Amino acid sequence: MSNKIFNRAQIDDMPQRYRANFVNSLSGPKSANVVGTIDDNGNTNLCLVTSVFHVGANPPLMGMLMRPHTVPRDTLENIKASGEYTINHVNSAYFKQAHQTSARYPREQSEFDATGLTALFSEAHSAPYVAQARVKIGLKTRQITKLDLNETELVIGEIVEVSVLEESLLDDGCIDLNVTDSVAASGLDTYHRLECLDKLSYAKPDEELRSLKGEKS
Amino acid sequence: MSNKIFNRAQIDDMPQRYRANFVNSLSGPKSANVVGTIDDNGNTNLCLVTSVFHVGANPPLMGMLMRPHTVPRDTLENIKASGEYTINHVNSAYFKQAHQTSARYPREQSEFDATGLTALFSEAHSAPYVAQARVKIGLKTRQITKLDLNETELVIGEIVEVSVLEESLLDDGCIDLNVTDSVAASGLDTYHRLECLDKLSYAKPDEELRSLKGEKS
Repeated sequence: MSNKIFNRAQIDDMPQRYRANFVNSLSGPKSANVVGTIDDNGNTNLCLVTSVFHVGANPPLMGMLMRPHTVPRDTLENIKASGEYTINHVNSAYFKQAHQTSARYPREQSEFDATGLTALFSEAHSAPYVAQARVKIGLKTRQITKLDLNETELVIGEIVEVSVLEESLLDDGCIDLNVTDSVAASGLDTYHRLECLDKLSYAKPDEELRSLKGEKS
Repeated sequence: MSNKIFNRAQIDDMPQRYRANFVNSLSGPKSANVVGTIDDNGNTNLCLVTSVFHVGANPPLMGMLMRPHTVPRDTLENIKASGEYTINHVNSAYFKQAHQTSARYPREQSEFDATGLTALFSEAHSAPYVAQARVKIGLKTRQITKLDLNETELVIGEIVEVSVLEESLLDDGCIDLNVTDSVAASGLDTYHRLECLDKLSYAKPDEELRSLKGEKS
């Protein structure tokens, strides 16, 4: 096994699509979520987003990065107008439908209808959940910031409601992503099931790590 | 199987550590990377970071979120002082050592020495790579922004060099994360191997998705 080294000039010289695949792979495994929104006319929208990340637990905040000139445009516009959206974990039963939501459907066509996913509404907010998801998160927008470096928009939301498969909730508050069957994405087109290697004790200097796998707490 | 619903008040009422585990699980699978830095005195530092995300391909940019009041403090200080750092994919052969880097070692103790990982230097920048990683990325800082919402710091870097296992590079530029054996993290303590479900064709309205798995391009 040998490593191939790319300097910056070689990366810049890659054909556009090759470079997009390459650089999109570099961050490693990504969360795969579909984001649900609704516009003023009641049109629902659904969009695959692989950039969701944890921002903080208290208050509970989540971030995601949206490219304004590509597919999630309707989603971003709806979020800006309504201030509400949902984040839904993609699982192995519907990852193909989730991928299909990234197609450029006309604004008036709901990706729920186009892909056969089911919208589920809550009293806590207006945005639709995906019924098929085992982890559903309702959020309200707290901050939208355009990154000057490349015009992407960083959306940070505050969690207002969570619906999670009861059997996946461990005694310590962790959600077992093997039980929710949440999938990881890589690059722009690949999806992976998770196979748990271990759950490890809190790391301390000069203390051996213990496996917590299988323990309820 | 039934779902349990948490409203915001119930999340805010959770005991602190339970809430941290719960909310940290909500974003789904996360990239698991160790970030390598060096200070003015030549002390190397290594730190597990599970918040790395893709920002853009042209220019090639990566982001990560750092909590300034917790463990990655040395890392953040070194990044601010030197403007350089590396991002290294954690794989299943060294995920326990990667987890151990999150222990609170004294500043003068290198996490490379403490965990038995090997520092590897490049002529392109001063920051140390992790020799054990099959994907190694060298970056220079482009932007550090404090998020007012919770004082975390968003670090965005520009890629200056990439070293990747040759056998993992597909003809279309994607890196096969099953070949690099890159692992995903969930919550604060759990690590997963990836099992590829599928690689899918570009999604278009009214066109059936095709599987690209096994195709070289």
